Amino acid sequence: MITSIVLIGAGNLATCLAHSLQKTGYEIKQVYSRTEASAASLAAWISCEHTTNLNKIISNADFYIYAVNDDALESVLKIIPDHNGIHLHTAGSLDMAVFEKYRTNYGVLYPLQTFSKTKKVDFKSIPVFVEANSKENLVETKDLARKLSSNVSIIDSKQRAKLHLAAVFSCNFSNHMYSIAAELLKETNIDFKHLIPLIEETCEKLKTMKPTDAQTGPAVRYDKKIIEKHLSLLNEKPTEKEIYALLSKAIYNKHKE
Amino acid sequence: MITSIVLIGAGNLATCLAHSLQKTGYEIKQVYSRTEASAASLAAWISCEHTTNLNKIISNADFYIYAVNDDALESVLKIIPDHNGIHLHTAGSLDMAVFEKYRTNYGVLYPLQTFSKTKKVDFKSIPVFVEANSKENLVETKDLARKLSSNVSIIDSKQRAKLHLAAVFSCNFSNHMYSIAAELLKETNIDFKHLIPLIEETCEKLKTMKPTDAQTGPAVRYDKKIIEKHLSLLNEKPTEKEIYALLSKAIYNKHKE
Repeated sequence: MITSIVLIGAGNLATCLAHSLQKTGYEIKQVYSRTEASAASLAAWISCEHTTNLNKIISNADFYIYAVNDDALESVLKIIPDHNGIHLHTAGSLDMAVFEKYRTNYGVLYPLQTFSKTKKVDFKSIPVFVEANSKENLVETKDLARKLSSNVSIIDSKQRAKLHLAAVFSCNFSNHMYSIAAELLKETNIDFKHLIPLIEETCEKLKTMKPTDAQTGPAVRYDKKIIEKHLSLLNEKPTEKEIYALLSKAIYNKHKE
Repeated sequence: MITSIVLIGAGNLATCLAHSLQKTGYEIKQVYSRTEASAASLAAWISCEHTTNLNKIISNADFYIYAVNDDALESVLKIIPDHNGIHLHTAGSLDMAVFEKYRTNYGVLYPLQTFSKTKKVDFKSIPVFVEANSKENLVETKDLARKLSSNVSIIDSKQRAKLHLAAVFSCNFSNHMYSIAAELLKETNIDFKHLIPLIEETCEKLKTMKPTDAQTGPAVRYDKKIIEKHLSLLNEKPTEKEIYALLSKAIYNKHKE
């Protein structure tokens, strides 16, 4: 029997999930989004029903996967009835207990990746972290996850919260470092593409070295001359200057140990 | 005629340079390092002379390449005489004018990469930035750089300073973000390798999107609930908490514009 799925959400993650679920042979029965255009366009892509009305969510799916903003989840859970099937959220920072009041069978399927609508990612290589409220639900959730990804782990909500925090540092915050770099280069007419080999090598090193062992740069030995020169180059950018000073101190303190 | 080179320095960058120069057909005539062991081991690798005595640097090389700490450069320039040949430093943050008092023919050859002794990098793909004190010296320096790398640009010392600052943000500081993430995962028994696909995708995006457009995460929309949860997870790490708060505010302010 084909496993059937309802997708609540039509954003970047929901779109990537829909593509991968369908490729893996699941039947997506329905897509919900607040916005008619988003619901309709994703539903058209995978040839299924769509709705913008939470009361019209079908009742006989095997899985209900919630890929909505963290803040929206609880209000959505209040409106959609406790249909049979396993209800999974996909959020890094929400405790599984968010379902407790509203659902009988539930769990979490958290794919650790940054999703953009304009760039497809191969779900197979994305680490997926699962959790469920019973042994049976965990088995089914794990099965679903394993069809999507070749890297599935079971972790609890507390671990997932820390994992999400680690992801914010290593993805969102490092990306902000690239933003600052891009702005600096723009000011001096150097193409950002010249930084790509350096950024790639910084990632590449992580496969063979611990990040602390791979640390280089003026902050490691607190090279005062360079650091002061850099700070003065940032005189007109107070936030970036503060970031530079704080991170240089943090790196130095870590490495003098 | 084979171009001959003296390498002053035997650290990570000097080692990478030596390997690439030799592969490209240059003759490395001599290696200098303060430390006998470093000088001897690099010299043995490339079968050339070595010395730990700045007064014994040979006088008839075509290029003298200085790959020493920024702080050490000037003291080294004072001791080594103004031998014929072109004198190049390799530092991101040192003005070319550092040579003015001590040399007749000089310039800069700055490879934009993070070098580690234990991990070889292919010099061909490293962006190299050159500058020289005369047209003739620039031609020769550019020729040398082009044999090492397929990506050579001419920039002046002011541009190079900003480029180096951008490199600190995108390499050194992003690596510190990975360090913090690694520590968080260690505390909760999750293998750091699970973060690699996320980190790689964050880099990969830079090839098709501006970093600002690629920004995701709770800070973009200042998701208070998540941010407060994350800050409380960092209660016992005051520095990391400060970094989290500062970067989240910076990202939010950039994106509300």
